[in-house]
Amino acid sequence: MAAAAPPPPPTPAATADPAPPTPPVTAIFTRIRLATPADVPHIHKMIYQMAVFERLNHLCSATESSLSSTLFNHPPFTSFTVFLLETSPAPFSPSAATASPSFDPILRTLTLDLPVDDPEREAFRSSEGPLEDVSVAGFVLFFPNYSTFLAKPGFYVEDLFVRECYRRKGLGRMLLTAVARQAVRMGYGRVEWVVLDWNSNAIQFYEEMGAKVLQEWRLCRLTGDELEAYGKIDF
Amino acid sequence: MAAAAPPPPPTPAATADPAPPTPPVTAIFTRIRLATPADVPHIHKMIYQMAVFERLNHLCSATESSLSSTLFNHPPFTSFTVFLLETSPAPFSPSAATASPSFDPILRTLTLDLPVDDPEREAFRSSEGPLEDVSVAGFVLFFPNYSTFLAKPGFYVEDLFVRECYRRKGLGRMLLTAVARQAVRMGYGRVEWVVLDWNSNAIQFYEEMGAKVLQEWRLCRLTGDELEAYGKIDF
Repeated sequence: MAAAAPPPPPTPAATADPAPPTPPVTAIFTRIRLATPADVPHIHKMIYQMAVFERLNHLCSATESSLSSTLFNHPPFTSFTVFLLETSPAPFSPSAATASPSFDPILRTLTLDLPVDDPEREAFRSSEGPLEDVSVAGFVLFFPNYSTFLAKPGFYVEDLFVRECYRRKGLGRMLLTAVARQAVRMGYGRVEWVVLDWNSNAIQFYEEMGAKVLQEWRLCRLTGDELEAYGKIDF
Repeated sequence: MAAAAPPPPPTPAATADPAPPTPPVTAIFTRIRLATPADVPHIHKMIYQMAVFERLNHLCSATESSLSSTLFNHPPFTSFTVFLLETSPAPFSPSAATASPSFDPILRTLTLDLPVDDPEREAFRSSEGPLEDVSVAGFVLFFPNYSTFLAKPGFYVEDLFVRECYRRKGLGRMLLTAVARQAVRMGYGRVEWVVLDWNSNAIQFYEEMGAKVLQEWRLCRLTGDELEAYGKIDF
């Protein structure tokens, strides 16, 4: 599975009205933190929602158990790493207990024209306190890759997902920005991911973030029975 | 940098001659083993040859020092891993000292119509004994990736390279097969890499090995000044 980006936020329409009505403004508070094993149920639900969005849910065999046994086996950033994006109607405490020695949570305030109407609020109530009403809104899963030309590691973003009711608010950009900032802080040379060639909204969003879309390269994949056959091979 | 595959070995031409002349036959002995820091000078030279082959040497800034400091920092297969392919005119000992606890070297004998004429034999003399005249012929660099749909790791092959005088003998296939076999042994779900869309020889070679070329996905890359800008960002 590859990154599914939300489209860019809509540009406010220009208006000739000299005194447009002021829209109501509401604030939500966001936090990006390292995911923990306790977040697996939410991660699993979002992976399935992403598969449905991409009409690939028949290919999605991930379970909470298989995610738990394959993620979180190595220190963050040295292997598969998940940033979780949470929202709250009240400010997060900067000293929240979810700070990790390897990553300080990123706290931001968003102003929105309308409050978020979340039909799955209960299902996505965060496992992490101390606040009530903290909801999981999205995640990004990434891991180190390597460029021999640069002789430097980078990060590969396998998945970027924002739940539907939280889209078009800049949250996907925040998650990808968090990965890019972490890459720079670690002296890494690249952040890479893939996009479907017909997803012009996502391509525009990524190009606006400074990424180049490489047109000549094609992904090759050996999997399923074709891969299994190599387990028995004697060259 | 992505995988640069040798073209598939030529198919022997069918002949109507009832008694074709028997070509001379020569044997070479091959070994695939885990690379060590002592192999960095050879790996560096091959990375540069690969860059020249792809006419991208202006983008290749790897040095022996930068390779040494970024490879070999984690146990094999948990991070960036290099298999080195060596050849010898005499058999390798199965008990050679280069066996690693995590990977038994793969030894094979190849029969060729003509001996290999290696103009760089001295430059690529292997650092690993016990035999003299062991030459480094190629390498593959790979690392774990992750599929959220499968909830399983896989391997991503960043580079596959066989030195020019050793091409068209099935050695690229041996290196990629070694990675696929390792993936199956570890219970991994995929082996992936990228190929240039105009490299029809490589695409045919990969498809013959059982891989699918995914036509819809495009690689996105954030690097250079555009990436560095994210180091200073305050969201």
